[in-house]
Amino acid sequence: MSVTAREIRLASRPTGWPTDDNFAFADVELASPSAGELLVRNTFMSVDPYMRGRMNDAKSYVPPYEVGKALEGGAVGEVVESGVDGVTPGDLVLHNAGWRSHALVSQYTPLTPVDGVSPSHFLGALGMPALTAYVGLLDIAEFKPGETVFVSGAAGAVGSLVGQFARLKGAGRVIGSAGSADKVAHLKNKLGFDAAFNYREGDVRELLTRAAPDGIDVYFDNVGGDHLEAAIDSLRRDGRVAACGSISMYNEKELPPGPRNLYLLVGKRLTLRGFIVLDHNDRFGAMAKEVGQWLADGKLVAEETFADGLDNAPAAFLGMLRGENTGKMVVRL
Amino acid sequence: MSVTAREIRLASRPTGWPTDDNFAFADVELASPSAGELLVRNTFMSVDPYMRGRMNDAKSYVPPYEVGKALEGGAVGEVVESGVDGVTPGDLVLHNAGWRSHALVSQYTPLTPVDGVSPSHFLGALGMPALTAYVGLLDIAEFKPGETVFVSGAAGAVGSLVGQFARLKGAGRVIGSAGSADKVAHLKNKLGFDAAFNYREGDVRELLTRAAPDGIDVYFDNVGGDHLEAAIDSLRRDGRVAACGSISMYNEKELPPGPRNLYLLVGKRLTLRGFIVLDHNDRFGAMAKEVGQWLADGKLVAEETFADGLDNAPAAFLGMLRGENTGKMVVRL
Repeated sequence: MSVTAREIRLASRPTGWPTDDNFAFADVELASPSAGELLVRNTFMSVDPYMRGRMNDAKSYVPPYEVGKALEGGAVGEVVESGVDGVTPGDLVLHNAGWRSHALVSQYTPLTPVDGVSPSHFLGALGMPALTAYVGLLDIAEFKPGETVFVSGAAGAVGSLVGQFARLKGAGRVIGSAGSADKVAHLKNKLGFDAAFNYREGDVRELLTRAAPDGIDVYFDNVGGDHLEAAIDSLRRDGRVAACGSISMYNEKELPPGPRNLYLLVGKRLTLRGFIVLDHNDRFGAMAKEVGQWLADGKLVAEETFADGLDNAPAAFLGMLRGENTGKMVVRL
Repeated sequence: MSVTAREIRLASRPTGWPTDDNFAFADVELASPSAGELLVRNTFMSVDPYMRGRMNDAKSYVPPYEVGKALEGGAVGEVVESGVDGVTPGDLVLHNAGWRSHALVSQYTPLTPVDGVSPSHFLGALGMPALTAYVGLLDIAEFKPGETVFVSGAAGAVGSLVGQFARLKGAGRVIGSAGSADKVAHLKNKLGFDAAFNYREGDVRELLTRAAPDGIDVYFDNVGGDHLEAAIDSLRRDGRVAACGSISMYNEKELPPGPRNLYLLVGKRLTLRGFIVLDHNDRFGAMAKEVGQWLADGKLVAEETFADGLDNAPAAFLGMLRGENTGKMVVRL
């Protein structure tokens, strides 16, 4: 059996914000899988902030996408034809050959469907974003019950989990920032945040001080820029920052100045620590067990924003970078 | 017995660089010590960078100096009259009532003179600067043998010890920056640094890249500013920064921008950690034992720059802030 797969390639590298011209669609014929391979039809694919970095030709923790080749990223696929003993058509797998309708994959994780839980959650609340939130909060920021936690990008895939994990783990107070009044209402009314603010409504430092008049202990940084500066101001003695990403800067052509108050690290004994989720796969089991239970018990809200069809993947990616999603942005194929 | 003590008071708070007008001299009569007190004649007093912060009216880890009152700081004194059983005139003590010729002290550490070691070293290579270097390098930056260490302010009281401790602990390579060609020669020829540069001679980033073409693992930050930005660029994966101080900024009226490359924390998994030596007195014993042995064995160069007489203490303090000292700046009374 052979299938015609539609795939999305990097047509050119963006400068600043990506445009449609940076993406190209192509049809390729896929043969039957060899031994050890699976032919899968993708049902869900992920668009994530880190992908913007891979569009640049820069040395980083993952190699850049290659111009003229298909993009990559997390996807859930259904096996169409199997070259692996014990895997049969209809089985679900998680793999990294997103941005295409079908793929031949040799590296994959078998998925066990959970009643009442959409397989798309393996790209979000039970996947890489969840592990990012879990490791960042617990291992990197060394969160302890009773502490006050602030997270930026709080309505996003990772941020919405950070805030809820903190609440479920006994935080004294959970504060989030997001980019619209609707998202702020969502954080407070649906996700159980104690306070939230729309960072577009004023000076982040003032907004954070109002939301956390007694300061914060942990800041989970998804955005960088003025949020980080405000957090350093608000951090109490022995406070910690888990530096996860800087989405505010990914599309800047010139790097903005860093926080002017970094000298406060000394007097307040602060720790800023960057991390990459790929290094922490050993924590996947612990995360999946704890988070799976919260999901099953209805204690965790795992919001998703869906875009439909492969043709809409570039728009979904750009929309995610602009903050149009609430919770995990997923493309449904 | 009563003595007339000469003391130096904070006359007014400086804006930017302190001037002579910020200091005032006064004579005060000291009575005989009460029970539990010692009357001491100071023989050496310390001038340290952190004192600049205490001249501001700002909440910090130590309270600000009070206008109209005597300054404070580390000093070695000889007991003149004792109100404490077991302490007799002539004994040496370490205490915090510097900036004066004599003082009544109730909090002090008895000092045991070491043959061939000037008691002034209890303000430097066997004192607070040594503990700062020891804790910062080993506990905060978690230095491991074989690693490459970069320290700024490397000819200063703390920096000169950081570099030597790293060498004695098995660093792969030790790099220092200082503010003159003489100091750079001193680092390379006397203190055993593998490489050193004069940061006034060019762009710190380029100078550091040349001195550490393969990158660094640990940065011990005494100065902040462009040194920190350059170090973040040069740090290798899993690198650590011990943030000890920001002497480049203490006299700035407006805070300069922070490092533009702070986003590199994420991809390189870097940790920046601030610390204050006061929190780490439990490590004093371990430091004194190890460093004392290095001193006794002649393995450690404990350079001092002396100023003579209390009247010269303000000038010594300002000179230290400008970097005129090599090793520990001490006022000899």
